[in-house]
Amino acid sequence: MPGPFGAATAVSRTGDGAYAADLDASYSVMGKPNGGYLLAIVARAATEHLAATGVAHPHCLAASASFIRVPECGPASIAVEVHRTGTKISHVSAHISQEGRVVVDALLSCGRLASETPVHHQDSDPPALPPVEECEPRVPAGGAPGKGISIMDRVELRIDPATSGFAKGEVADEAEIRGWFRLADGEPFDAFSLLFASDALPPATFQIGSSGWVPTIQLSTYVRALPAAGWLTARVRARTVAGGLVDEMCELWDVDGRVVAQAVQLAMVRFER
Amino acid sequence: MPGPFGAATAVSRTGDGAYAADLDASYSVMGKPNGGYLLAIVARAATEHLAATGVAHPHCLAASASFIRVPECGPASIAVEVHRTGTKISHVSAHISQEGRVVVDALLSCGRLASETPVHHQDSDPPALPPVEECEPRVPAGGAPGKGISIMDRVELRIDPATSGFAKGEVADEAEIRGWFRLADGEPFDAFSLLFASDALPPATFQIGSSGWVPTIQLSTYVRALPAAGWLTARVRARTVAGGLVDEMCELWDVDGRVVAQAVQLAMVRFER
Repeated sequence: MPGPFGAATAVSRTGDGAYAADLDASYSVMGKPNGGYLLAIVARAATEHLAATGVAHPHCLAASASFIRVPECGPASIAVEVHRTGTKISHVSAHISQEGRVVVDALLSCGRLASETPVHHQDSDPPALPPVEECEPRVPAGGAPGKGISIMDRVELRIDPATSGFAKGEVADEAEIRGWFRLADGEPFDAFSLLFASDALPPATFQIGSSGWVPTIQLSTYVRALPAAGWLTARVRARTVAGGLVDEMCELWDVDGRVVAQAVQLAMVRFER
Repeated sequence: MPGPFGAATAVSRTGDGAYAADLDASYSVMGKPNGGYLLAIVARAATEHLAATGVAHPHCLAASASFIRVPECGPASIAVEVHRTGTKISHVSAHISQEGRVVVDALLSCGRLASETPVHHQDSDPPALPPVEECEPRVPAGGAPGKGISIMDRVELRIDPATSGFAKGEVADEAEIRGWFRLADGEPFDAFSLLFASDALPPATFQIGSSGWVPTIQLSTYVRALPAAGWLTARVRARTVAGGLVDEMCELWDVDGRVVAQAVQLAMVRFER
């Protein structure tokens, strides 16, 4: 039985390279499906299509997407095209459409993550966080599914108090938010939910006073390893803000200190003060 | 008159959303066109197509590409599809084909970079480098165009001696290469050549002993500003190496210390020792 995230990202085959999904209001922010959730949906369609054609590449290792139109919760169709199946990597493009219009266009490079691959080099350890019980739950989701920040009912996020000033209206110098992160109900992570996790924290620009409007233009996530069971350590950081645009980095480590996913995104941003 | 890079990335319209290019052996590595050069080609086609349809978005702000097959120098065709033209951003997809097969599939988010936009927030200053004359020229290209590392005849790269041990066969702990970078013949940078620059340094894994075989799977570059005239400061860094894959980051700053481009890529990698 899939957990809630697995169920909410299920896709069903409707034709050759054609899939249908129901974009779940539980994984939305202000009523609009979360970007990482959409990345997981296209990765599900891509890997299921590969499996249907006999290619054993069950994991999406790299996913880049353009967010073209604001998606709506509800029915969506996914078109998958396989460009090449190699020994280690299969390259796929996929797009999500609603009412005949493309809302997300994605590039997916799929392969297989080994469960016990040694790390040859890693330049960053997870940031030291206070114990989970000393970190702060994110503000409540604030409404029924499809209202408020619904995804916060589907995850557990405990923010390091050193980076949670935004929740009290404080403005910091550092555009960084870090904390403990896991899916609600103890659902274990897989390669798909890591794509979601890479875009599920609040925008790092909240810490330097941005408004809540931070729409993603492009998002690219690399899934590097299947995590050990337990909390992830998550860090989002805004690097450069200029011309109404910001790039944000997200890094996720498992309890063993291993990097399991890395993401960058370019987004629009506004400052009200 | 365009400079050498502008001439080598010229595209000509062959139909509605169809362009032709001649992939120039001068911008190749071991006879194969450089990935950043290919990103510049698709960005040229995308922005020219937007201009032809009356959309004034002359700069590619975000470009992500999957490298599907090893391209060859010589004729190539580019197919461009516009998904949406917004006020600030136009979303385009484009692919390069050779002999009827897709070699590069790309997502391009285009807009307009203002020349004098203030920086609201920037978390990293350029690394301090020794003066240009104390940094080391990269090994010679080593042959006629199409042989050896031809792109090194088209750029000037002066590597900080602290990060150039790889050229002497040394293996370091840090997977970082940094230095001064500009185009040959003093050709000024534009938004297209910054895409090239974001992938033109040697792989950072050279410093930790990788082989020369580091083929890119996906590359994503954000162009943040048009640089002031002069040398760029460039830094490439490998973050995590595991399972035969590496993610590398590239950052480029202009002489005023402003971030002008940022890139990440996932690549395959091998270590022989």
